Amino acid sequence: MAYPSYAVTLRIRTPFDAQSVPKATRVISDNGGMITGLDIVKSDEHTLTFDVTCLTLDLGHAKVIRSHLQTDPDVNVLGIHDATVQAHLGGKIEVTLKRPLKTRQDLSKIYTPGVAAICERIMEEPSEARRLTIKRNTVAVVTDGTAVLGLGDIGPKAAMPVMEGKAALFKNFANVDAFPICLDTKDTEEIISIVKALAPGFGGINLEDIAAPRCFEIERRLKEELDIPVFHDDQHGTAVVVLAALINALKFVDKKIEDVKIVVSGVGAAGNAIIRLLIGQGATDIIGAGRAGTLGVFREEADPDRNWLAQNTNPRAVDGSLKDALAGADVFIGVSAGNILTGDDIATMADDAIVFALANPTPEVDPIVAGEHAAVVATGRSDFPNQINNVLAFPGLFRGMLDVQAEQVTDDMLVVAANAIANAVEDTELNAAYIIPGVFHTGLADKVAAAIREEFANGKTK
Amino acid sequence: MAYPSYAVTLRIRTPFDAQSVPKATRVISDNGGMITGLDIVKSDEHTLTFDVTCLTLDLGHAKVIRSHLQTDPDVNVLGIHDATVQAHLGGKIEVTLKRPLKTRQDLSKIYTPGVAAICERIMEEPSEARRLTIKRNTVAVVTDGTAVLGLGDIGPKAAMPVMEGKAALFKNFANVDAFPICLDTKDTEEIISIVKALAPGFGGINLEDIAAPRCFEIERRLKEELDIPVFHDDQHGTAVVVLAALINALKFVDKKIEDVKIVVSGVGAAGNAIIRLLIGQGATDIIGAGRAGTLGVFREEADPDRNWLAQNTNPRAVDGSLKDALAGADVFIGVSAGNILTGDDIATMADDAIVFALANPTPEVDPIVAGEHAAVVATGRSDFPNQINNVLAFPGLFRGMLDVQAEQVTDDMLVVAANAIANAVEDTELNAAYIIPGVFHTGLADKVAAAIREEFANGKTK
Repeated sequence: MAYPSYAVTLRIRTPFDAQSVPKATRVISDNGGMITGLDIVKSDEHTLTFDVTCLTLDLGHAKVIRSHLQTDPDVNVLGIHDATVQAHLGGKIEVTLKRPLKTRQDLSKIYTPGVAAICERIMEEPSEARRLTIKRNTVAVVTDGTAVLGLGDIGPKAAMPVMEGKAALFKNFANVDAFPICLDTKDTEEIISIVKALAPGFGGINLEDIAAPRCFEIERRLKEELDIPVFHDDQHGTAVVVLAALINALKFVDKKIEDVKIVVSGVGAAGNAIIRLLIGQGATDIIGAGRAGTLGVFREEADPDRNWLAQNTNPRAVDGSLKDALAGADVFIGVSAGNILTGDDIATMADDAIVFALANPTPEVDPIVAGEHAAVVATGRSDFPNQINNVLAFPGLFRGMLDVQAEQVTDDMLVVAANAIANAVEDTELNAAYIIPGVFHTGLADKVAAAIREEFANGKTK
Repeated sequence: MAYPSYAVTLRIRTPFDAQSVPKATRVISDNGGMITGLDIVKSDEHTLTFDVTCLTLDLGHAKVIRSHLQTDPDVNVLGIHDATVQAHLGGKIEVTLKRPLKTRQDLSKIYTPGVAAICERIMEEPSEARRLTIKRNTVAVVTDGTAVLGLGDIGPKAAMPVMEGKAALFKNFANVDAFPICLDTKDTEEIISIVKALAPGFGGINLEDIAAPRCFEIERRLKEELDIPVFHDDQHGTAVVVLAALINALKFVDKKIEDVKIVVSGVGAAGNAIIRLLIGQGATDIIGAGRAGTLGVFREEADPDRNWLAQNTNPRAVDGSLKDALAGADVFIGVSAGNILTGDDIATMADDAIVFALANPTPEVDPIVAGEHAAVVATGRSDFPNQINNVLAFPGLFRGMLDVQAEQVTDDMLVVAANAIANAVEDTELNAAYIIPGVFHTGLADKVAAAIREEFANGKTK
């Protein structure tokens, strides 16, 4: 169930003929390309040259389309422009100066000798670092490259494009300066000590794509030992957006979080954080299920985080498979693997069921089939309604935390962020296909940041 | 011998009187302020408000000037605008996007799902990281904050303004993206392992302001263990610019480096690197002197780097004080402490002596006094001719190394950079007050980079 998302532009030359363009676009569409743009490059009495921009599955798919086009001897594909590679050439971010440096006087202020007075001021009063250095607005995006997207353990170099992209999102949506730090080590203690050593120059740490269970220990220890917020986006970013979507979905079906039966498939980093945040919001009946079935008091778990879930969820002690747990449930949240449920499974849920099938790129259940049995369906994909996307949370959340000079992220902050995201959808707008704002929702990060500032200014805790 | 370099603006209100401005500027000048600008803010029939921008020693000096101004009951200093602090507010650099991110299509290219293909490409072919990530153009400016400017061990937070400034210089002069990494550890092994772990995302490492002798071990080990250039600016940047200046000074006095007697005062990080580079350029008679006197075969040194100098310099085995070594020498290079020599000491040197008194802010010998006995005098200060400033070297050197995808810095590269800097001064321009180009010399970094590219393209070694 992969979908075309890889942008390429095919430059095509044909004899001049009014049918050339429709014939070519037909071939592209028939072979799975999704056309997004058409530009005539050159037209004369004999030939026509035009660019067709389209989404394909990948570069290989684009090449297959090219060969189909060229079965017509009149069609000449001059080249495939790889717009995705183009968007990454030389990297996606740069480091720029905030103020001009053109004169000797500029130099003597920003560097020697003037800078010495600034250093001395921070030495005397370390809190001045927040006023006089980039610490005030800068977040480290830290990974070891072990759990990147759906790709897994691809290593620090191959993880860079994602971490740079993350930094670009931070800047674009919330004017936060973020810098990618891709670490060539998988050792928990070493990662902890590196991040601690790096911390003086940063106002926050965004851990990213670090495999479980290592990510739990790294986050817990850094939270204890640092005086800046430490946030693992795969856990807490996902949890915030899931909670935001669930608040609105429950509003739509007119149920209360205290009353509903919730099943979470996947008890790794994301599932763990989601369950904890839902408990914080008042959920009382949550069952977590991993590959071996439901967690509960009936079975001790070796991993301490997983054991905490076993001991603190599943009040009805349902001991069985995911499907056993699903029967009669109001809410299904999947952060596990593709195609593990069918429409028949969803049909066993309670009336007005809510299904969040977030495995990517293939959801736990086909969202169209799920929609035949559930009142609300959400996925992690951009080509279905209700995309659960972390981009909705982390930029505004960090903007707010930097603004209040937060020393840590608390569950209360996550709940405030989730409610701010949920509230961005007006009651009059709320419907089954619109429970969560879009990524480019105007002012969303500002709203999240404002909510954080309002509730947590001056070290205030809720 | 500190000099006014701290920029402030005093806003002054007086009764309307043609003499108000000259009276005020007189008071400022008489009290050591160096006026650089005057702006009338508001003038009416009763009062005159004006801004005087001036260089002072520091903010305290500006306050002293204020109190002198206010001894006149007609003069009201409304405020002191601290232009130096202003230049550092919120830090000096930011992270920006290279391309717009405005649409869902942009997002699907730079982030999920499009980014996955880029990650996979780097995973299959790691050298693609230089094409598809910021690695190609990005340098880490790494310090532990132990030897910052003349301030010493001020710690990582207080070191940030200098490292940010360095990053700003990298961008401004050579379009290199540099990012400050200020480490909260002084442990040699920990610093080495942190820099190694960080390396995947960077194309070069600029070590900065790390105390000797730790800096030697850190640099040596990282050079061995990393496949990107590792450069300690306090050593090699200084050495490059000293060599550049010496090449031109020797040309001016018509002496050859093989023939001259050279004395280097200070055998720490900078002195060590200078001596090694001068040997590489062909110098044969160099004496290094520390606080305890000259180094030579006559005395074993505990520190291995210092002992290497003892065994490989001072061919005439001069065993004595700095002043003993100086008698008859052609070249003095000081990277030690202020005011340790007098004009009489310089007078004992050979005819057409060359004096580089680089201790900052107070040179080893008063440069005006030295000029009475030497043919060429250079300092580290911006208010005398011939400033030896590392900014002349590191931007262009790294630009060139990134462009050729250098895997390490070699002594040959340093020599090429030094000669490129020296050659930026035309023979017709060369004189005792102009042996080295200025910091804002047009195109200097380009010339240095071009020389590196020419000599070392495609992993070529000279």
